[in-house]
Amino acid sequence: MTGASTNELLDFAHQLADAAAEVQRRWFRAELEIESKLDESPVTIADRETELLMREMIQARFPDHGIFGEEYGKQAVDAEYVWVLDPIDGTKSFICGRPQFGTLIGLVRQGQPLLGIIDQSILRERWVGVQGEPATFNGKPIRTRACADLSAAVLASYSRRMFPKGPQRDAFDALEERVYLSQFNTDCYGYGLLAAGFVDLVVEQDLFPYDYLPILPILAGAGATVTDWKGRPVGMGSPGRVIVAGDARVHAQALAMFQSLPD
Amino acid sequence: MTGASTNELLDFAHQLADAAAEVQRRWFRAELEIESKLDESPVTIADRETELLMREMIQARFPDHGIFGEEYGKQAVDAEYVWVLDPIDGTKSFICGRPQFGTLIGLVRQGQPLLGIIDQSILRERWVGVQGEPATFNGKPIRTRACADLSAAVLASYSRRMFPKGPQRDAFDALEERVYLSQFNTDCYGYGLLAAGFVDLVVEQDLFPYDYLPILPILAGAGATVTDWKGRPVGMGSPGRVIVAGDARVHAQALAMFQSLPD
Repeated sequence: MTGASTNELLDFAHQLADAAAEVQRRWFRAELEIESKLDESPVTIADRETELLMREMIQARFPDHGIFGEEYGKQAVDAEYVWVLDPIDGTKSFICGRPQFGTLIGLVRQGQPLLGIIDQSILRERWVGVQGEPATFNGKPIRTRACADLSAAVLASYSRRMFPKGPQRDAFDALEERVYLSQFNTDCYGYGLLAAGFVDLVVEQDLFPYDYLPILPILAGAGATVTDWKGRPVGMGSPGRVIVAGDARVHAQALAMFQSLPD
Repeated sequence: MTGASTNELLDFAHQLADAAAEVQRRWFRAELEIESKLDESPVTIADRETELLMREMIQARFPDHGIFGEEYGKQAVDAEYVWVLDPIDGTKSFICGRPQFGTLIGLVRQGQPLLGIIDQSILRERWVGVQGEPATFNGKPIRTRACADLSAAVLASYSRRMFPKGPQRDAFDALEERVYLSQFNTDCYGYGLLAAGFVDLVVEQDLFPYDYLPILPILAGAGATVTDWKGRPVGMGSPGRVIVAGDARVHAQALAMFQSLPD
């Protein structure tokens, strides 16, 4: 038992995000500043440094909490509280100098997402979700927007090449033909924009728990509909395939295009 | 004859960019702030207001200069100096709340690009090119980076759907298969990242003069290789199809994949 209140845990999550952002601002586009050759790429250094720093902070403050991070794996994940960390979601954007990546910080209690943060360190933008509370963007409450039909929807996704050639890519291409407009290489930023009412639909696959668990409380607190491709709730053991919509009508239309696909 | 020096013209171009940026910062994600319904979308308002403001400033300061803008068309384009304006290049990014759009401001003298600016108003990032001088990013000189082969190249482009189904899309898809990684919905920002050494290749079509003329001095001043799909120089009367590479070797490889395509 840690005895920490949700407020204390959220304050600490903000501290993690602040620390991660400082590391990333030092390494983002470091090629522009650094003359000498590095042994590793700035993105690799930033990725590892960010996660190591967050892990050290968690171990010092909450030694009985578990950690599941993208870079350094699982540690005590049978604990009551488990921190789920993706130090840089969107490494390709980071590599290209596009500030469209984010740090994902989630806290899961007994398998249920309790709180989550998406932090964009360069733009100093932060989305926060806490179970049962309205989601916020830089401290202000946000909601998804209404969208009655796919034909009016803004679709965001990592890439059509995330979907293997065959029925999956065909389904995604058909979806892209139906929507109003599409945006790619959005990574976690696309979910943030959906929560804030600028994107209507995100369809992706090949996600790991650290890619989506930290985002779930934000989506829930903004009123989004979130399922896997079979229409089931998304949680720790999900297949990593998601359909997220700001409006349940758009979700139903997209689900109808994906739910008959083979696993 | 205006008698203005290049420095005066460049100072004035910065004033245009500053004024445009103020308008855009007021309207970007205005949905979050504005409760009442607007007759037009924020992006439409921002697009028009930005160009109108720049046109007024040009007419007041340089009444004998011509103007060619995306929204309000051509005016005295047979003048010695012609300003080429795209108030928001990347309106879809603007619509989605992604700060990946830009204001393009170019000045053409007797048909030759003299100076150009890409301004990203939200990130407060500005690329500047002046004929015969090194390009700059936020005041610091930039260069494209070396890249020996397509397999190591970062490709940026608006969308594969910019290329009609058939030989053009096939060529683009084949290109995407060959590169190290790709980024989409980059608009003018992709050219800026190429000039700064984070992207190696941009291939696009359907461009209008206001989409590329303001960018040419930046690309030239950063050492990029710029041609159309036939390998010809790009200028006022070009077909709007470009291959831009940071390294001439990558340019040659990409050109080989596109130059035999029908017009």
